[in-house]
Amino acid sequence: MRIAIASDHAAFALKQGLAGWLADLGHDVLDLGPDSDARVDYPDYGFALAAAVADGRAERGIALCGSGIGISIAVNRNPAVRCALVSEPLSAALAREHNDATVIAMGARLVGEDMARACISAFLATAFAGGRHQPRVEKLGAPVFVKEPA
Amino acid sequence: MRIAIASDHAAFALKQGLAGWLADLGHDVLDLGPDSDARVDYPDYGFALAAAVADGRAERGIALCGSGIGISIAVNRNPAVRCALVSEPLSAALAREHNDATVIAMGARLVGEDMARACISAFLATAFAGGRHQPRVEKLGAPVFVKEPA
Repeated sequence: MRIAIASDHAAFALKQGLAGWLADLGHDVLDLGPDSDARVDYPDYGFALAAAVADGRAERGIALCGSGIGISIAVNRNPAVRCALVSEPLSAALAREHNDATVIAMGARLVGEDMARACISAFLATAFAGGRHQPRVEKLGAPVFVKEPA
Repeated sequence: MRIAIASDHAAFALKQGLAGWLADLGHDVLDLGPDSDARVDYPDYGFALAAAVADGRAERGIALCGSGIGISIAVNRNPAVRCALVSEPLSAALAREHNDATVIAMGARLVGEDMARACISAFLATAFAGGRHQPRVEKLGAPVFVKEPA
């Protein structure tokens, strides 16, 4: 499968480990950086990962930062992509089954590499259930009209 | 504090419990529904919650669905709001400290009510650290330009 992966500096080492593991499993890994642990801003990498999934360069995406929170928000700014922040495999499977998520986010400070592998395995192995979940997923692609904060 | 709360049917009972607890603590709770456990679509409630936080009707928001995933995606479609999907208090605190999140999402099928209370307590008690986190948070409010999926 074509899998894009991106992180910030805090999750750089985890990204390197997971990218190598995915390549060893035979996946086509698109590493969107960074290429060192020098300080970067997670939104830049989250936006790039979301764009890669949205335009079809990758079928699935893995987004990593210190807590996973910041990069998960960044990915979900793109209405063509659905990203689930997970820390265990049940959520990673539900993200596919109920939400047809194409990206999972994880936090390198919170999730060890073996747990991250288990999450990714569940995420890649699980199909979308469709049915009653389909119209809900479609609503997530609708434009959101935003008023200025008061 | 003015706190908005919303759920889907799967998290209706948890929403009722948490709304009562927050009111007992003296918070001004804005319950955006649903008002029964009849089937609804989580995006409708996530969008409504995000709008309430974005336009200043609430200072903080709590978003609940079965896994927390779907409603967290819905809330984050609004670029004026930052929502963290959490299942333990460390992430709830980091969401405030590093990401200045104004909403947390939780999954009623995955997180018990006592754990949800602990997450909310950490979320409400923690201040944004600012500093190097500020420009990253600002980037999350930038418009995202989306190409059509291939």
